[in-house]
Amino acid sequence: MAQEKKLVEAITSMEEDFAQWYTDVVKKAELIEYSSVRGCMILRPNGYAIWENIQKQLDARFKETGVENVYMPMFIPESLLQKEKDHVEGFAPEVAWVTAGGGQQLQERLCVRPTSETLFCDLYANIVHSYRDLPKLYNQWCSVVRWEKTTRPFLRSMEFLWQEGHTAHATTEEAEERTKQMLNVYADFCEEVLAIPMIKGRKTEKEKFAGAEATYTIEAMMHDGKALQSGTSHNFGDGFAKAFGIQYTDKDNQLKYVHQTSWGMSTRIIGAIIMVHGDNSGLVLPPKVAPTQVMVIPIAQHKEGVLDKAYSLRDRLSAKYRVKVDDSEKSPGWKFSEQEMRGIPVRIEIGPKDIEANQAVVVRRDTREKIVVSLEELESRVGEILDTMQKEMLERARVHRDAHTTTAETYEEFQDAVANKPGFIKAMWCGEEACENKIKEDTTATSRCMPFEQEEIGKTCVCCGKPAKVMVYWGKAY
Amino acid sequence: MAQEKKLVEAITSMEEDFAQWYTDVVKKAELIEYSSVRGCMILRPNGYAIWENIQKQLDARFKETGVENVYMPMFIPESLLQKEKDHVEGFAPEVAWVTAGGGQQLQERLCVRPTSETLFCDLYANIVHSYRDLPKLYNQWCSVVRWEKTTRPFLRSMEFLWQEGHTAHATTEEAEERTKQMLNVYADFCEEVLAIPMIKGRKTEKEKFAGAEATYTIEAMMHDGKALQSGTSHNFGDGFAKAFGIQYTDKDNQLKYVHQTSWGMSTRIIGAIIMVHGDNSGLVLPPKVAPTQVMVIPIAQHKEGVLDKAYSLRDRLSAKYRVKVDDSEKSPGWKFSEQEMRGIPVRIEIGPKDIEANQAVVVRRDTREKIVVSLEELESRVGEILDTMQKEMLERARVHRDAHTTTAETYEEFQDAVANKPGFIKAMWCGEEACENKIKEDTTATSRCMPFEQEEIGKTCVCCGKPAKVMVYWGKAY
Repeated sequence: MAQEKKLVEAITSMEEDFAQWYTDVVKKAELIEYSSVRGCMILRPNGYAIWENIQKQLDARFKETGVENVYMPMFIPESLLQKEKDHVEGFAPEVAWVTAGGGQQLQERLCVRPTSETLFCDLYANIVHSYRDLPKLYNQWCSVVRWEKTTRPFLRSMEFLWQEGHTAHATTEEAEERTKQMLNVYADFCEEVLAIPMIKGRKTEKEKFAGAEATYTIEAMMHDGKALQSGTSHNFGDGFAKAFGIQYTDKDNQLKYVHQTSWGMSTRIIGAIIMVHGDNSGLVLPPKVAPTQVMVIPIAQHKEGVLDKAYSLRDRLSAKYRVKVDDSEKSPGWKFSEQEMRGIPVRIEIGPKDIEANQAVVVRRDTREKIVVSLEELESRVGEILDTMQKEMLERARVHRDAHTTTAETYEEFQDAVANKPGFIKAMWCGEEACENKIKEDTTATSRCMPFEQEEIGKTCVCCGKPAKVMVYWGKAY
Repeated sequence: MAQEKKLVEAITSMEEDFAQWYTDVVKKAELIEYSSVRGCMILRPNGYAIWENIQKQLDARFKETGVENVYMPMFIPESLLQKEKDHVEGFAPEVAWVTAGGGQQLQERLCVRPTSETLFCDLYANIVHSYRDLPKLYNQWCSVVRWEKTTRPFLRSMEFLWQEGHTAHATTEEAEERTKQMLNVYADFCEEVLAIPMIKGRKTEKEKFAGAEATYTIEAMMHDGKALQSGTSHNFGDGFAKAFGIQYTDKDNQLKYVHQTSWGMSTRIIGAIIMVHGDNSGLVLPPKVAPTQVMVIPIAQHKEGVLDKAYSLRDRLSAKYRVKVDDSEKSPGWKFSEQEMRGIPVRIEIGPKDIEANQAVVVRRDTREKIVVSLEELESRVGEILDTMQKEMLERARVHRDAHTTTAETYEEFQDAVANKPGFIKAMWCGEEACENKIKEDTTATSRCMPFEQEEIGKTCVCCGKPAKVMVYWGKAY
């Protein structure tokens, strides 16, 4: 059993050091490898396969709402980036510049896209002429670059994968409707597929996207009580349209500006999956997003008939689930540890005695419950177990979040909560940036969002005591 | 009918000016739009959807052979690019350099990947230790940048989308086997899905990839007789392994170098689809890769029941095929022209008289054959028509290629063929680069490949008259 111990002991426990636990899991589950490029990570097969499953299911949800995919250049000429004032101020400090190509200095620098609003605006200005050309509902899957000083796998890296949707509409109402529609697509996807419950709300002026009129967000709570912004959706109004001259002729023959939105979700969400569901044995993947849902592990595989039986179970189950057999020469215990480290939702143990009894032992990754299943019923029972696990993971995350959400009516309560009760704090706010800044300085907590579901916790701002306008979720964040 | 004429007349005929025809189709079918970034193109929904279908089907074929997807950084530090001498000489002249990021000059320039051999080598050096770690069969879908002076949509652009597979093996035999296996995956995919027949062969020393021991290629013939290199697969031997120190401990406890391959196919192949199958009405897409396979076009759609019938046909057919209804306010003739321009394989015309007769008119895009089909049989007949069209498109492309392939035994015949018979020329070659260079200078034709299926056309080199070693396919190329 020395081998098994070695693998498991290699992870720091989350109670001891949550940050180190996270890094250990990411490395030991072989999700990423650091590269020779500072701040850039390599997505290894185990990590990229999660992203492929996210992409496939999210993309299908986008397309159901009429979204079409495109691909835009990765470079933005400096003059194009500068067309919208707030936007360039927000992004210019963190871009990478291409200054030479084909052996020559460029006359105009090109920035490597940090986000592509400017390119989409440039395109829409060319192809939108009439109300008949609207709406435009474009999305792209690509990587973007933001020059970050400190980086952490998935959570913050210089280059990351994401999708960015960019839409153009005839009216402000349609744009607002689309902005919220896409936030709901994200929230539903996270709850139904990733088993992560989300708080939906609006960002404050201070926290909104550079150039947006309104930014909506979904916020998740990690196991350590910190918040993770998991997806955002922006309503730009006609600000970009005016900067880029995106006009159309309406039915009444009037020239009007379009109204725009953008919305994005990135590989950051994989960090949320790890930090919401993982435990001290490694990853725990929700069945719907797990690249391998079932690992069949033969016991005493050198004995006649065992491997054949394992393969035949795999072949039977493969019609419905993503199944592999671990037929390597490692010991069963070692294989169990690896399957647990990689977060594979279910393992099936099958050995000579099981074969004799026409059964297998099915073990759930999250609860470690062992269920003896007759081989006749294997397909249906595995299906039930995966469904139950998916539901219970969401429920457990919800219970954890609610248990780590406190209410503060006074600034003392607020400061005590930040110091002693990791999690969200619900508190009233006057709407002034000064209070947001003071709270951040005093406590390092930031406003996560003004939730759509408002509660009246008190009448006055938790910070300054003046009349309150809105309830805000506050918290420390990744 | 003025509207319809306008759309069709906007394409130059291919007989008049093939290059202009190509550009017209690419624009009018809304596959691409030029961007503000010199040499970079925007893939619009019609164009990107073709790439999505290629990606989905090719990726499934890769995975069947055990390939796993990863994602590597888009930047390569200059020192890493320089590790393999031939490779850097081949690519350094055409790379783009990032020299500043986050508001500061970088200490070391980063090139935007033109291809990622160096990054994969760097990774393999870190994660390959034992024979148990081999083979590594990694692939990534991404964009790459090559600073081209002159660009053409799909065929040559500064940034393009592709996949690049990179594998590491214990033995030279395994590497060679994988190199050829992936070439066959490409050739089969092109023939079975894109209906494009391929010549498979090996590149000459002059034409091989920078750093490779051997490059294999698939070559297609366009409608104008020019060749298009459509996919390549490289065997690197242990050259990169030695430059990057990628070693493993073998079963006999000896430290050995790995043997590597790489292989790629890009959006360039969309150019081949256009130039092999297109006609003077626009695109003709092979059914298996067409984003929309069937367009239902209602006739007299203002009459009661017509639109409902069109939607119900779409709903019925959607279980098996990718179907849309064109219910816009344009005239049927205009819709026909658009469907033809976009290359949608089949259109179904349904009007009041058809409904009365319980039938629809099915029109094949490639032959324009009109087939009256009873509505009861619609699913099965549409399926048959799509299958037949797919097969006949491949067969037509093969007949065209064979009819435009000539044999040259003397240099006079060769020069006459290049001047007067657009297409491939089969001719013997001595193996000397001097003859390749002379042929290129005299005729602009290049060696396309040394085909796996050799024929003995003569005993002497078509250029110098010395003893011949091999038969080569020659031709002008994109």
